Amino acid sequence: MIRVVILGYGNVGFHLHKAITASLGVEVVQVYNRNRIDNLATAQTQKLTELVEADVYIMAIPDNAIASFSEVLPLSNKLVVHTSGGAAMNQLSSGNRKGVFYLLQTFSKETEVDFNNIPICVEAENVNDTALLKKLGECISESVVEINSDKRAILHLAAVFVNNFVNHLYGIASEISEENNIDFNLLKPLITETANKLSTLSPSDAQTGPAKRNDTKTIEKHLHLLEDSKYAEIYELLTQSIYANQKKQD
Amino acid sequence: MIRVVILGYGNVGFHLHKAITASLGVEVVQVYNRNRIDNLATAQTQKLTELVEADVYIMAIPDNAIASFSEVLPLSNKLVVHTSGGAAMNQLSSGNRKGVFYLLQTFSKETEVDFNNIPICVEAENVNDTALLKKLGECISESVVEINSDKRAILHLAAVFVNNFVNHLYGIASEISEENNIDFNLLKPLITETANKLSTLSPSDAQTGPAKRNDTKTIEKHLHLLEDSKYAEIYELLTQSIYANQKKQD
Repeated sequence: MIRVVILGYGNVGFHLHKAITASLGVEVVQVYNRNRIDNLATAQTQKLTELVEADVYIMAIPDNAIASFSEVLPLSNKLVVHTSGGAAMNQLSSGNRKGVFYLLQTFSKETEVDFNNIPICVEAENVNDTALLKKLGECISESVVEINSDKRAILHLAAVFVNNFVNHLYGIASEISEENNIDFNLLKPLITETANKLSTLSPSDAQTGPAKRNDTKTIEKHLHLLEDSKYAEIYELLTQSIYANQKKQD
Repeated sequence: MIRVVILGYGNVGFHLHKAITASLGVEVVQVYNRNRIDNLATAQTQKLTELVEADVYIMAIPDNAIASFSEVLPLSNKLVVHTSGGAAMNQLSSGNRKGVFYLLQTFSKETEVDFNNIPICVEAENVNDTALLKKLGECISESVVEINSDKRAILHLAAVFVNNFVNHLYGIASEISEENNIDFNLLKPLITETANKLSTLSPSDAQTGPAKRNDTKTIEKHLHLLEDSKYAEIYELLTQSIYANQKKQD
């Protein structure tokens, strides 16, 4: 049985705790959080001095707190990992064995997530710790990969494009629709299908639309509709970028 | 029984034919296409002079062909509709009764689509034709709405953001990943979840990431990774736009 202490109980800590609790071969022996959590069946503490023995200490805290928090942990030679896509492993304090347990998914407390297919990217300083993190990952997901800090940085950058930026485009469409009294829900089947298409087509093969076919008449019409909008520049830049890629392919 | 002739057999014509054939209350009596289609159970013709009687003639052809094709149709006072999001109803020839039957979805022959929840946006010049198009739409979908050409233009613009532009961002992530020997498939659960989140959260509530929290350290790191990339400008512009919206909310 792999014994885990979870440090922090935000969105990632919450979902990780839930997934581990539902899995075999691994248990959460303690949750550390600054504030007491209601209705938690697991032992918890608000004091770092009360941390119990475990095989892995998983820090599920904001990126900018990783370095300082790992520094004040009253632990020595333990496997302490962070869960960040954007932070390098060496941001962790040298007082413990370093590692990373990055869940490549977006979490919010409102939505259920199926851990089974969440890619878990692990990294550690030595082979034993890497093996342990892999084993831990495989208890909760079928997709566990070893990825070093350099590659994880790229993956995190790519994740910003497909999550943060894509969601912003959803937001723009929502704003444009609502300003014109159009129900944004009408666009949701298209949004879902655009994502689902990737199971059968590459993004390049799935690309359609006025920018790809250089349909300047439609593009002009759209820019006219966006005349007073702060989003015209985004429309123009993405249109140019799609068209440039298309020209390269032709 | 509503009798339909489908003019054109590209992606939209193909899926529309399939959906109508599987539905009650409506039948495709003929398919017109420049080239003969193999294994089609429905009657077909390659000659406009051979078009048969129908209640609705649905043109599933490229936007830029709508005006000229509708002009040469040897029909008079028939209900002739196009299926375009981007073209106004009045692009159709005045020789027939005009209408629009816009399927708000992305189609490719490779992927199955569930018509049931595809929004169908209908428009016609008179109430009887509008009612007929609604009835036709309701035979194949549960989501039929009446939308005029001005609103449909906005909807089409919003669709470009959530489909064409979003897919381009998927493509950028795919390129960045593959250049660094990272499997793009790792990002697919995140892509799916980003779309699915909209069933419980608004885009604005679902927004996360370095741009939203003005995490300049991560943004700088990402821009450094994109130093030689043509996509740095897109990263910067979308980051600024997310941050500007966030500031407005604070």
